[in-house]
Formats: sequence, C-alpha cells, structure tokens
Amino acid sequence: MSNDLYGLSRVVGEKGVLPQRARKLDPSLPCRDSEVLIDVESLNIDAASFKQIKGEVGGDPARIGARIQEIVLERGKMQNPVTGSGGMLIGRVKEIGAKHPARGQLQVGDRIATLVSLTLTPLVIEEVKAVHVDIDRLDIRGHALLFATGIFAKLPSDLPDTLALAALDVCGAPALVARYVRPGMTVAVLGAGKSGALCLAQARRNLESRGKLIAMDVSQPALDALTAIGLCDVALKVDATQGVDVMEAVSQATGGQLCDLVVNCASVGNTEMATILSVKDGGTAIFFSMATSFTTAALGAEGVGKDVTMLVGNGYVPGHASLTLALLRTEPALLQLFATRYV
Amino acid sequence: MSNDLYGLSRVVGEKGVLPQRARKLDPSLPCRDSEVLIDVESLNIDAASFKQIKGEVGGDPARIGARIQEIVLERGKMQNPVTGSGGMLIGRVKEIGAKHPARGQLQVGDRIATLVSLTLTPLVIEEVKAVHVDIDRLDIRGHALLFATGIFAKLPSDLPDTLALAALDVCGAPALVARYVRPGMTVAVLGAGKSGALCLAQARRNLESRGKLIAMDVSQPALDALTAIGLCDVALKVDATQGVDVMEAVSQATGGQLCDLVVNCASVGNTEMATILSVKDGGTAIFFSMATSFTTAALGAEGVGKDVTMLVGNGYVPGHASLTLALLRTEPALLQLFATRYV
Repeated sequence: MSNDLYGLSRVVGEKGVLPQRARKLDPSLPCRDSEVLIDVESLNIDAASFKQIKGEVGGDPARIGARIQEIVLERGKMQNPVTGSGGMLIGRVKEIGAKHPARGQLQVGDRIATLVSLTLTPLVIEEVKAVHVDIDRLDIRGHALLFATGIFAKLPSDLPDTLALAALDVCGAPALVARYVRPGMTVAVLGAGKSGALCLAQARRNLESRGKLIAMDVSQPALDALTAIGLCDVALKVDATQGVDVMEAVSQATGGQLCDLVVNCASVGNTEMATILSVKDGGTAIFFSMATSFTTAALGAEGVGKDVTMLVGNGYVPGHASLTLALLRTEPALLQLFATRYV
Repeated sequence: MSNDLYGLSRVVGEKGVLPQRARKLDPSLPCRDSEVLIDVESLNIDAASFKQIKGEVGGDPARIGARIQEIVLERGKMQNPVTGSGGMLIGRVKEIGAKHPARGQLQVGDRIATLVSLTLTPLVIEEVKAVHVDIDRLDIRGHALLFATGIFAKLPSDLPDTLALAALDVCGAPALVARYVRPGMTVAVLGAGKSGALCLAQARRNLESRGKLIAMDVSQPALDALTAIGLCDVALKVDATQGVDVMEAVSQATGGQLCDLVVNCASVGNTEMATILSVKDGGTAIFFSMATSFTTAALGAEGVGKDVTMLVGNGYVPGHASLTLALLRTEPALLQLFATRYV
C-alpha cells in the first residue's frame, strides 16, 4: 500500500487538504505507484453544474465544451466553481500503479466508470470531441487519475452504458438497505425514483416474502409503475413534506404498528419528519436524500421523543456496484423500468 | 393513550402541522387528557435567541423581559422569530392528564425541566419576575403544557439546578454512546466540552478498562482538565477542521489501526472529514455536533471510499436523563469539573 491513499500529493499549494476541497490538483503524468491511469472517453457532468454552465455561456455545445475545458485546465479537475459539483467519468484503464489495491483484479484495457466525484479526480482534457447537451455529457480525449481510495466499477458488457451509469450513480442505497433489512420487517421507502426502486427491490429480496413493503411517493404514476412490477405490497400516495399526514397513512397501512425501517430517497427537502414519524420506537431510518437537514433530523426526533436510529446514507458500501448490477440483471421488470425511465 | 400524542390540537390554523413548525400555539387552559400542566418558575432562553433579543432592544433587563413576553403572547410559545430557536423551562407539575403516559411515575408538585424545546411548548407568561442577563434566564409566573411525547426530567434535589440543566441539555450524547461502546474498543471523542466530557466518562465505563480512549480538542487546557481526572488514555491537541492532520494524529496514537468509534461533539463546523478519516473501515461515527453537514458527511465518506456507519446523534434516548445524572453522581471528579466549568 502506498502512503498516499487519498491523493494528497496531487494537491497544489495547500498542505493537508484533501483533493475534494483543494482549489487545484496536479494531473500531470506519470501515473504514480498508488494510482490508476485512465484513458477518458466521456465525462458525465453533474446536472446542476451543466445547467449553470449552459446558463453562463448559452446553449451552444462548442462554448459549453470550451468552458469546461477552461475549468479543467485551471483547476486540474472538473469542479464547477459556482455549484462546487463535479460528475463522473468513463474510460479505459491504461496503467495500474504497483501499489494500487486494485492491482490483480483490474486489467489494462478494462472499461470502468469512476464512482468518486470528478471534484477530486485529477483530469486533463486534450480535446473535446462532442458535447451532448441533452444528457449533460462530453466525449473527450484525455486522461484522469484514480487514487487508492477512489472507488470505481467495471462497466458491464451486457448493459447499455447509460443504464449502468444511472444505476451505479445510486448503488450505495440498495447495498446499505441489504445490511439492515431482515425477513419479517415492515419497511417503507419514501420516493419512487431510481434509488427508491432499487431499495425496494433489494428490500423485497431480504424480506424473503415475509413482512411488509411500502412504497411512498407524491406521484401516482411513479407508484403505479412500481406496483405493476410487484416492487411493493402497498403504495401510498403522500406528500412527504407533510409529516403528520404521512405518519397517519403509514399507521393505517400497518395497523398502527408503523415501520421497523424507513428509507428516505426523496428528491425534495423537508421530509425528515415524515421519515421519523413513520418509524416505530426502536426502529431505524436511513437518509439518502441529499436534501436532508442534519439538525432537522436530530432535533425533530428529540422533539417528538422518538427512539429512532438515524443513519446518514453513505454512498460507499463494499460491493455496492456488483450488488446493484446483479439486482438489475436478475430482475427483468426492474431492468425494463430503468431502460424506459432512466436512459 | 390519547390520540393527540404530538399536540396537533394545540396548533392554531394550520392543519397537520407539528407544534414546532407552527406559527402559533393555543396555550389556553384547561389541561387536556394527554397533557401535563406545569407551573413555570423560569425559562432558560437559547443563547442565540437571547443574544438576538438583547441586540434588538438593548441590555435593559425590563425591555428584554417585555420583548419575550410579547413574543410568547403572539405565538403561544417562546420561539424567537429571528433565530427560530427556543430554550427549556423549569417548573412544578400542577396537573397530570388522565391519559398522559407519565401518570403514575410523576406526581403533582414534582419539580421538572422540559427536555423538549420551548419552540413546541404551549406557554403563557403572566408576569416576568426577574431577568438574569448573565445566564440567559427569566424567572416568571405562568403555565406551560407538555404533550405525551414531550420529554422531561425530574430535577434532582442533590444537584444545583444550573449544573443539572447543563448536563441534561446534552444528556442524549452519553446515552447513545452507552449503546455503542463495548469492552476492548478504540474510541475517540472529538471536542472536550460538556457533551464530550460526558461521552468520555460513559465510554470509559463501557470499555471496562480494556481498549483505548482518546480525547481530541483544539484547546490544551480543556484536554488537560480531562486528563487530570482520568477521562482519557490519550489526549490529542488537534484542529478538527484539518481532517488529514487529525487522521495522522489518531493513526499514530493507535499504531495505524484508527478507531472503532468516533464521537463528534465539536462546537465548530467542517469537522466531518476528521471524524470519518479517524474511523477504521467497518467502524462507526456518531455526529452530535449541530454544525454537522449531512451532505459533507455522506459525500465525504464516499469520496474516500470508507465503509463507516454514520449516525445522526438523536437527542432522545430512553433513560438519557437518569443515565446522565447517575454518571455525574458517581464520578465526583466529573461533577467537580461541571461545577467549575458549566455553572
């Protein structure tokens, strides 16, 4: 193992700062002992970042590409200076450092997607080949470096890139759900988007046909799509910002028992109380929504005197990428849903 | 049990809104079946709120009292319209509703402190008797109502009020620590303030003289005070906003093993990475700091590929008040520390 697991030696001019918070990274070659060198094919820019750049320079693909190239030249990584966000990349492994932990399992030529943000990935763009404005993507010629702690996934050859990326983007969620769901539990998932669908599919597997699985969303069509493929036992159309209403709906659906586990995959803010109030005393809540407020959750549970274990949804769980891809491969209806909705 | 555990019927004009988020509560008598009526002695106003009011009306105690009385008259609760924060109260039980869960364990005449915020507590101030500007406290004549889910603690007769309140204010922290620390673990506590000291004392007890206990703070005097009374095995003077430095210090103190559990009781922001990086793979972090950013924690762990279970520190854990008071009573040195530093 190298002594630079976190890429500290790639940070320019700020001692002891992690690459993600650094102003500038040094993306120069050669690839170091603890790194993997990637021949980059394309960059998936974070939606908020892409939108900001489009707003700044206008919709012209060439100008968007030029602006992104300019940012990467300046910072040595793709981190939007306004939104602070990055994205992920796809490319082929070109070199594997002697001390990189993936040596042995990864081969030169493997096609991979990085699962760590572009905000911490040293990057050089030699040429922008195409800008796909509709899907926030750039095809480029260039290279990137992955640190020893930088997680990635081999891209499957049996699934389209866009579909695999859509699932890999949220693969921590079903993997964490797999750790907490046991047969017989009552489990609710708030939010019927892609991470919600994956969490339901994984929970259903762990429940082993015992217990109860509840899907909640504000959109009836989204719920209908999940119900149609058997991803839940009960679908509740609720506004998750209305905590008391949600609690009442869940209470009714569970004969007053509430849930052992509630998984929050909501895409809007102010859904902490709906989550907390739907958990039974002694139960667990996992928050994956990036709109979660730490203080609202902490003070909210205290305010209602509820003994609930509250987990911050860690995006990394060992084996999360393979678990998620396996889930899609073995659930044809789920795969079909992803193919229609997220590609 | 009543069907209004959360005091929804006390909210004026907003259906399905919890008292904490309500604009106005109805604090009128009589006391309802699911409530406890309290004869209020004093209000401990949240520090940020008190400071704001002092800034608004000037330092004159009478004007501060009048402004607080005005807010309570307007809102039916003490929730500062600028800071949004409340505080807690001390008083004597005057009446216990027939369906309140504390019926049986609580007696009329008991002196209690509410452990839920004044922001959700129906309150009437009949008279402001005194304003103690130095300790953010008002002595009043008036009444308050506690809901079935509103947590409280009987005030001990063997400890000064101020000392008991200082400890009860953070009593969820040591109680949650008690759930997660087992003999032989390596445990670190970030922040040597009052919650940090209580967490260390509780962790030491759970470790049963095995494992290792590390205290971390930026202040050497604060660390010295804890070391002097044997609350830690190792004291590390670190700046918790410097994640990499903290990780290196912890790594050195643990022979490269890092910690099974890190408890974040920091009073400043930007300490998530110090916490995450100090935990070993598969370990746990508990965040009590109200300055914790949910997204920084979630994305930070992912960014460094660390499999760490991250818990939102719930302020409520059953039995937390008695656990904390018992800790103070049986640790004379800790009690002495509290008496000198927090009263």
